[in-house]
Amino acid sequence: MQHILVIKIGGNIIDDANALHQFLDAISSIAHPIVLIHGGGKLATQLATTLQVPQQMINGRRVTDEETLKIVTMVYAGYINKNIVAQLQARKRNAIGITGADANMILAHKRIHSSIDYGFVGNIDHVQANVLHNLLAQQYVPVIAPITHDGTGQLLNTNADTIANEIAKALSATNKVTLLYCFDKKGVLKDVDDETSIIPSITQENIEHLKTNNIIHTGMIPKIDNALAAVAAGVHNVVLGHALDVLDIVAGKTGTVIH
Amino acid sequence: MQHILVIKIGGNIIDDANALHQFLDAISSIAHPIVLIHGGGKLATQLATTLQVPQQMINGRRVTDEETLKIVTMVYAGYINKNIVAQLQARKRNAIGITGADANMILAHKRIHSSIDYGFVGNIDHVQANVLHNLLAQQYVPVIAPITHDGTGQLLNTNADTIANEIAKALSATNKVTLLYCFDKKGVLKDVDDETSIIPSITQENIEHLKTNNIIHTGMIPKIDNALAAVAAGVHNVVLGHALDVLDIVAGKTGTVIH
Repeated sequence: MQHILVIKIGGNIIDDANALHQFLDAISSIAHPIVLIHGGGKLATQLATTLQVPQQMINGRRVTDEETLKIVTMVYAGYINKNIVAQLQARKRNAIGITGADANMILAHKRIHSSIDYGFVGNIDHVQANVLHNLLAQQYVPVIAPITHDGTGQLLNTNADTIANEIAKALSATNKVTLLYCFDKKGVLKDVDDETSIIPSITQENIEHLKTNNIIHTGMIPKIDNALAAVAAGVHNVVLGHALDVLDIVAGKTGTVIH
Repeated sequence: MQHILVIKIGGNIIDDANALHQFLDAISSIAHPIVLIHGGGKLATQLATTLQVPQQMINGRRVTDEETLKIVTMVYAGYINKNIVAQLQARKRNAIGITGADANMILAHKRIHSSIDYGFVGNIDHVQANVLHNLLAQQYVPVIAPITHDGTGQLLNTNADTIANEIAKALSATNKVTLLYCFDKKGVLKDVDDETSIIPSITQENIEHLKTNNIIHTGMIPKIDNALAAVAAGVHNVVLGHALDVLDIVAGKTGTVIH
């Protein structure tokens, strides 16, 4: 059984060319099979501003009208995805950049909400794990842009955290999977202003204690609940930490492990 | 030995949503393995205009500065590529959209010219046919955007006709390959204003006669010379015709066959 790393990187690392290069240097030295999922960063918002396409965010989700879908498809699946792929190739890590539409990897449906029209935003129905298994068997690093499709020709803007979560769960059926969320903190912190106050471990047993004693910042609770759900669904563990600490995280030296 | 169709479609079909849908309907019914290479159409030029990035064309090639490379990567590898993939999925043809950087499929180098600086434009060094063989073995239609890389992290804007030509040659080492250039005419015409004046067949034997008697329009000569070179390099045949005639072309009923 292989130990696969499913790594999600967010905007804080994508928007900073030097940090991205350091991160890619680091992961290129990791022997494990890797699946990399990237978010969008500020580029899509910047392009929308330049193109005068008004943007609306609701609960951190981008309302995606037709013009915005075009922008995120260009930025995520085009510019960001292909630059990461080329940078991994330069590091002799053979990468292949795809979306959920490619190889029919991720089927989704347009989100229906009783009061909010999110537009072309996808809720995931199914991840075809065999697509990733085949790519990993050829020693590729799949680099996944957060775009899916509905099977009838419609592309859908889809949350990258959710994609990472669903991919990790799908791969866990036949593999040991660590899901690594890289964000702008060194882990789940007791004190958000103190990067040394990392909570090293969260489990189904201690989570209620951490919640009721307000030790976890409320903004982190959905992330942790999703991580616990992933673990309950078979993911070996989920680690939250800083992208630039990725080697130490993989070595178990830092980050918050949810298991 | 499989008979693979390498099909290149240009801007005339990409810019026309109805025509593109008809074309994709048609190829979805073809039993042969297909590799589809697409050009860019007018979208990149339109986006450059909106973003006020001046564009310069020299001999039909787009001079590609850093901002233009960003635009073509977004439009070709993002918007156009993923829309074609999603449309093929809707037709139950399992497609995977990639560039030459993905899976290290096409290595190129930045074009050096004694007097013209083309910018980030690639000349192809090598096509890894095994990448395409592996994708075709999984019943995927590889959909190729005309972007390559140099192996050091630099993406390069690369002519789609040339990519189609090099892919066809690389696949011919182990397969029977028909290279199909879809453009805005029904074939090589004796009279460019008469779509019925198709020259059905061009060979190394009759090309000189056609040239010296001015039967071939001078603008077609580079295309035909490249096609003859492809045939000399092992491609079974090259057919020029209209995208909407693709089924008749594959059936040998129309188009100009170069063999």
